Amino acid sequence: MKRLLDEPALRSLARGCAVLGTGGGGDPRIGLLLALQSLEVHGPTELADLDDLPADALIMPCGMIGAPTVHIEKIENGSEGIVLRDHLEQITGRKVAALMPAEIGGSNGLLPLCWAGPMGLPVVDADGMGRAFPEVPQVTMHLAGIDPSPAVMTDERGNVIVFRAISGQWMERLERSAAVEFGGSGAATEYTMTVEQARGATVRGTFSLAIRIGEALNSAVGDPVAALVGVTGGFPLCSGKVTDVERRTTKGFVRGSAVIEGLGGDAGRLLRLEIQNENLVVLEQGRVLASVPDLISVLDTETADAIPTERVRYGQRVTVIAMPCDPVWRSPFGLQMAGPRAFGYDFDYIPVEELAGARA
Amino acid sequence: MKRLLDEPALRSLARGCAVLGTGGGGDPRIGLLLALQSLEVHGPTELADLDDLPADALIMPCGMIGAPTVHIEKIENGSEGIVLRDHLEQITGRKVAALMPAEIGGSNGLLPLCWAGPMGLPVVDADGMGRAFPEVPQVTMHLAGIDPSPAVMTDERGNVIVFRAISGQWMERLERSAAVEFGGSGAATEYTMTVEQARGATVRGTFSLAIRIGEALNSAVGDPVAALVGVTGGFPLCSGKVTDVERRTTKGFVRGSAVIEGLGGDAGRLLRLEIQNENLVVLEQGRVLASVPDLISVLDTETADAIPTERVRYGQRVTVIAMPCDPVWRSPFGLQMAGPRAFGYDFDYIPVEELAGARA
Repeated sequence: MKRLLDEPALRSLARGCAVLGTGGGGDPRIGLLLALQSLEVHGPTELADLDDLPADALIMPCGMIGAPTVHIEKIENGSEGIVLRDHLEQITGRKVAALMPAEIGGSNGLLPLCWAGPMGLPVVDADGMGRAFPEVPQVTMHLAGIDPSPAVMTDERGNVIVFRAISGQWMERLERSAAVEFGGSGAATEYTMTVEQARGATVRGTFSLAIRIGEALNSAVGDPVAALVGVTGGFPLCSGKVTDVERRTTKGFVRGSAVIEGLGGDAGRLLRLEIQNENLVVLEQGRVLASVPDLISVLDTETADAIPTERVRYGQRVTVIAMPCDPVWRSPFGLQMAGPRAFGYDFDYIPVEELAGARA
Repeated sequence: MKRLLDEPALRSLARGCAVLGTGGGGDPRIGLLLALQSLEVHGPTELADLDDLPADALIMPCGMIGAPTVHIEKIENGSEGIVLRDHLEQITGRKVAALMPAEIGGSNGLLPLCWAGPMGLPVVDADGMGRAFPEVPQVTMHLAGIDPSPAVMTDERGNVIVFRAISGQWMERLERSAAVEFGGSGAATEYTMTVEQARGATVRGTFSLAIRIGEALNSAVGDPVAALVGVTGGFPLCSGKVTDVERRTTKGFVRGSAVIEGLGGDAGRLLRLEIQNENLVVLEQGRVLASVPDLISVLDTETADAIPTERVRYGQRVTVIAMPCDPVWRSPFGLQMAGPRAFGYDFDYIPVEELAGARA
């Protein structure tokens, strides 16, 4: 089941990647512009299903690592993907057959498309999260026991680093410090695997899902948030106004929080959103409304376009929604890697649908 | 002209490396203990002259990078050299024929010996500085236009990083940040070259010089400082007591200063010593007595043993001496890379012998 990604598909994809990015993964506008340029120069990139590729073909998961606040000002040169691919092929002695976003969320869902264009390679309809997460080993490949090494990083200047780390946590430390040295972000690939491995180690169909989300928003009549909830199975938590934002770019991450004051039917409510690149937790009077690994997106109330964490500003009219994560993240190992405690919170994860049911 | 390094040679070498380390390169005691262990297990390492090796044989310059204050507590596992060599051979597709210290100074002058032992490889009688310097591109190979890439770094845990940087300065930035992430220091190789290249891109005979220095100290009758001055052509600047030390380990370097108050014939004098891993500048009432790239060593007044910057303490009786650097560092490019201005000082370099002559 092959599909060529034309301009309408890319535009829908960008809207969907924004929603699935849960605030992170980089502003999809950057990725969309690069993808449109690649489309113009190299023609449409093919979206391939893992079942249509040879079992032993090599998949290169890739994307940007670093702080999204930096990424909106420090733009790629466009050839980072080729540099990553060339070095990975040289190291492994094997040909890369397809690219895959490490995370479907944000600009990182679109970048592998731009990079695959000049290579004439397909992108697989899958990713390593079904969303975006801030840290390197927070990918389904890690849960499946795939080795993060060898990893390759490069920057827009042409520096190249190859990492062979003793663990996913060390890969995170070493890549993060390199991203900081690069000026706050860099391009990276890690967890190289075969198609056969990828079939059991990725969240599948996430490109298709992101496109469907975008299409639902494009064709929404009336309330676009309702259309989004329809296609994602999400839960609207509150509509209101952003009344406070605190954000700092530090050690290769954006960390901070935002306060949302309810309006209309939500008047009198006060939500606190906590951020590490992505939206991690929504609290109301100390009560958790939703948390990682479930998806939390801040939407423009008028358009239902998701707002990246680095673009949240005082006065914006927003609707916060939460969506269930892929079931793999609800496993013990999934929660160990990406549950609330993995981010330093002292509470256990409760699925968003249970939290919503308890409130109802 | 081959020479096998036996225990007396190693012990003399360690004393000489301390002097040539100008305070840096890591405490030679660590390197000596590792070298003695290698001698016991693998027999003596061969010291080879570059003229006795085939012109196209590959030389691996190597050593530790990071803060010497860390290095005295965070010890190597001993196999870092083999990891560096194996990865370098895999990357270049060529066999390493001999090791060379990137810097003869401090522990870094001895480490390649320890690493070469289990490999059965010789160490060449040369280094990349004729002393120790804090930063990666402050080597004669850089002055000769040798490419710093590919560089390899590893730590005692087994993490491995390969760097291909666009310049020596970027290599410094990227390796330094990795050293910081490793906990403050790591093992590294860069500026791989052939023997033919090395003949014109290194300071030759520095192992022999370090051994001669150690032997002169060992056999000194009466004043060992005088014996040292005899073999190095150095200039004693002042004898006195350390009355103040300020030292901080930050961003992969030790930075700080020490104050030395003159005693005996130097009573009433006050010297200020400034440090970045190595001793950079000696000042007296704002007047420069000696500066990089010339060598400045702080010696125990009784034994003439050089004291590493991380071991300088209040109350020590010391004699500060300065020695002329290798002429290559006095070239315009040499001074650009390692002269006073390269370390942020706003004055021009004057050779130590001219400064001494002006005072006489």
